Amino acid sequence: MNNKPIGVCDSGVGGIVVLSEIIKLLPKESFVYLGDTGRFPYGTKSWENIVKYTKESIEFLISKNVKMVVVACGTSSTVLAEILKEDYDVPIIGVLEPTLTDINDNDKKIGVIATSRTIASKAWNELLQEKYPNLEIISNSCPILAPLAETGWTDNEIAELTVKTYLEPFKDKNIDKLILGCTHYPLFKKIIERELRNVELIDIGEKTAIYVKRFIEERNIGNSSKRAATYKINLTDIDESYIIMINNLLKGVAKINSSDIEKTSLN
Amino acid sequence: MNNKPIGVCDSGVGGIVVLSEIIKLLPKESFVYLGDTGRFPYGTKSWENIVKYTKESIEFLISKNVKMVVVACGTSSTVLAEILKEDYDVPIIGVLEPTLTDINDNDKKIGVIATSRTIASKAWNELLQEKYPNLEIISNSCPILAPLAETGWTDNEIAELTVKTYLEPFKDKNIDKLILGCTHYPLFKKIIERELRNVELIDIGEKTAIYVKRFIEERNIGNSSKRAATYKINLTDIDESYIIMINNLLKGVAKINSSDIEKTSLN
Repeated sequence: MNNKPIGVCDSGVGGIVVLSEIIKLLPKESFVYLGDTGRFPYGTKSWENIVKYTKESIEFLISKNVKMVVVACGTSSTVLAEILKEDYDVPIIGVLEPTLTDINDNDKKIGVIATSRTIASKAWNELLQEKYPNLEIISNSCPILAPLAETGWTDNEIAELTVKTYLEPFKDKNIDKLILGCTHYPLFKKIIERELRNVELIDIGEKTAIYVKRFIEERNIGNSSKRAATYKINLTDIDESYIIMINNLLKGVAKINSSDIEKTSLN
Repeated sequence: MNNKPIGVCDSGVGGIVVLSEIIKLLPKESFVYLGDTGRFPYGTKSWENIVKYTKESIEFLISKNVKMVVVACGTSSTVLAEILKEDYDVPIIGVLEPTLTDINDNDKKIGVIATSRTIASKAWNELLQEKYPNLEIISNSCPILAPLAETGWTDNEIAELTVKTYLEPFKDKNIDKLILGCTHYPLFKKIIERELRNVELIDIGEKTAIYVKRFIEERNIGNSSKRAATYKINLTDIDESYIIMINNLLKGVAKINSSDIEKTSLN
């Protein structure tokens, strides 16, 4: 057993959606979260900077004595291979691999939506086609979706029109499944479902939570303490609106107080 | 006379719009530009971080031996009073004051659109009402407009609907003028004009260029060299798309080659 907290990082507060999924499955675990809100969003930034920012975030969490790090950001997860060239003492898990369990030999055509940088990286194509070489992949980058989500516009007419525009390449293409390749995108699930009927949506947050639970159980590194779980949220930028936003994204799974949120700096 | 370049900084490439206006009026001047693309956008970040980021940008330009600094970012300009508590050796000019020349005693009601942080700062209200205490000011924050502009969506249906939504509070309110309080917003001018007919739009970039020209002439610090003007663009994040975007925003006023663009770090 291991009573240290689990570290979770993201470019902003989108990773809180993943955190809430993990808490649901692992209610006894404590968590340290790092959101790089001061440099949000990552999805439109360069590969080189995403490596730098993600490294700084992981090293911050390791300095907080976590037992593992979940990189709860689609964009950051695409640069993990580069980051793992350095030998860290704790396991580091991204949001791409956990999704693989949801694809199988019957799938002919898969859609992927993600940030500009994630799509440009071809990381999803490489991962999926390594295991399923004949799988056809259609992808589209959606640079405005994460900023829309962070401003709270996830169910108005603008969100609807934006999602519709981004989903255009998938219409009438008979895709079997659509990977929501950014932690913010499940917030647009209702609109996406209306647009692409009968397409199974793959939520990377949910899949990652299942993966983390299994990872912890297999290694027997769960928290055995009888003390209540704690949640520490570190953000590189902060204002009064964050506490409301974070609690909204946690959807009642946990409750964060202002004393749980701390402003930090990564450089 | 002073043959040093003029420094121009912004949170991203929106300040290039201001740069192009200044080059039009001062074709003999050379420029050093700093765009903090690695932390773009500023408009949704905290006051404290905007002070930090803007200071770092100004100090970078001063280290490049500029004769003055133009803070070509609406959001950064709202924190200038704080920054100018430090005594810099060169004059530093923001984009708020230059706009004052366009307001007069006949104006009863003025509209302001800007980023969330700019509107929350009340900087426009303070500036305008200090000189015109009876002036009524209606303002609205438009967090999605700058990201939309940087993704190139300035004239599609989504841009139209977003602008329409943000301009709702000004409809039928008989405002005399509308201040476009972010350097990106002139890119939406056509849509704004369709939405608010007969309202004069105040473009902070144009006003700042006029102000800088007068500032240089009055102090006789213009460039007297016979050598062609040079333009150096420094960005804290960079990819292949930036050179196209920058040249588009310059609208033929100057031409930037890839050798004129350099990646830099502010921390």
